[in-house]
Amino acid sequence: MADSTHTATERDVLEANAIFYKAFSDGDYAAMAALWAARAPVACLHPAARALIGRSPVLESWKQILGGASRFKLRCDQPIAHVVGDTAIVTCYEGAGDQPAHLAATNVFVLEDGRWRMVHHHVGPVSSPVPAPPSPAFSVN
Amino acid sequence: MADSTHTATERDVLEANAIFYKAFSDGDYAAMAALWAARAPVACLHPAARALIGRSPVLESWKQILGGASRFKLRCDQPIAHVVGDTAIVTCYEGAGDQPAHLAATNVFVLEDGRWRMVHHHVGPVSSPVPAPPSPAFSVN
Repeated sequence: MADSTHTATERDVLEANAIFYKAFSDGDYAAMAALWAARAPVACLHPAARALIGRSPVLESWKQILGGASRFKLRCDQPIAHVVGDTAIVTCYEGAGDQPAHLAATNVFVLEDGRWRMVHHHVGPVSSPVPAPPSPAFSVN
Repeated sequence: MADSTHTATERDVLEANAIFYKAFSDGDYAAMAALWAARAPVACLHPAARALIGRSPVLESWKQILGGASRFKLRCDQPIAHVVGDTAIVTCYEGAGDQPAHLAATNVFVLEDGRWRMVHHHVGPVSSPVPAPPSPAFSVN
C-alpha cells in the first residue's frame, strides 16, 4: 500500500512482520522457518504458554501449529515498528478472520545477512477487543 | 550471586532487568524512570492492556502504578537474556510475593550511553502457574 509515514527500514521490518502473519494464515511452515533467525538466539511465547527457548523447540511448535487442522487467517492490526540499530520491535494486535483483535503481540526482528529475521514472538490477551480497522492492514502480497 | 553461566554482558543485562523488578517492588518511580530509555523509542504492554507507545505515556502509567496503594513484591523467575549486538531480550516469569508465577514477561533493553536501558515490556498470563524457585532469583542488592 502507499506508505509515506514509514522510513524504508520500518517498511522492511513491517514487511518481515507481515510475512509472519501470512505464513501463519497460509499454514506455510517453510516460510515460517525461513523467517526465524538462523544464528541469533530465539524465543517464543505462544498465548498462555511457557517460553520456548531456542530455534529447535520454537520451530517444532510452529510445525505442530501450522500442521494442525484449525487453520485460520490471522490478522495483524496497527503494527508499529521501533527500530534500534540492527534490531526492531513490532507491537501489534492479532485477530482471527474479521473478528476484533483479542491479542497483543510483541515481535522482535534482527538484521541477519541483510534480512530482517524474527528472534522473539510473545502474544497475550487484551481485556477489551480491539475492533478490526476499516482499511487493510500492512500486508505482503 | 556467584554466576559462572552468564557472560559479562548477560550479567549486565540481567542486572538491568533486576532493577526493573526492584523498582516495581519498592514503588520507586525515579528508579523506574531512570531505567527506561531516554532516546530510543519505547513501548509497554501491561497485563491485558493495550500498548502504550512513547516514553511519556509509558512513564505516566508507571507513575500511577507505583503510586498506587497495592504495592507488592514482584518476583522475576528464570530470567534468560538473549543479547544481539546492542539489544538484549529477557524472557522471565513474574510472581507476586511467594506465590507461583502467573505471568510471562518479555523485557527488551538497548545500550544507551553505555548502560542497558529498557525499551519494551510485555506481560501476559501463563495458563499453568510456574512454581517459585527454591533458590533466590538473580537480584540486585
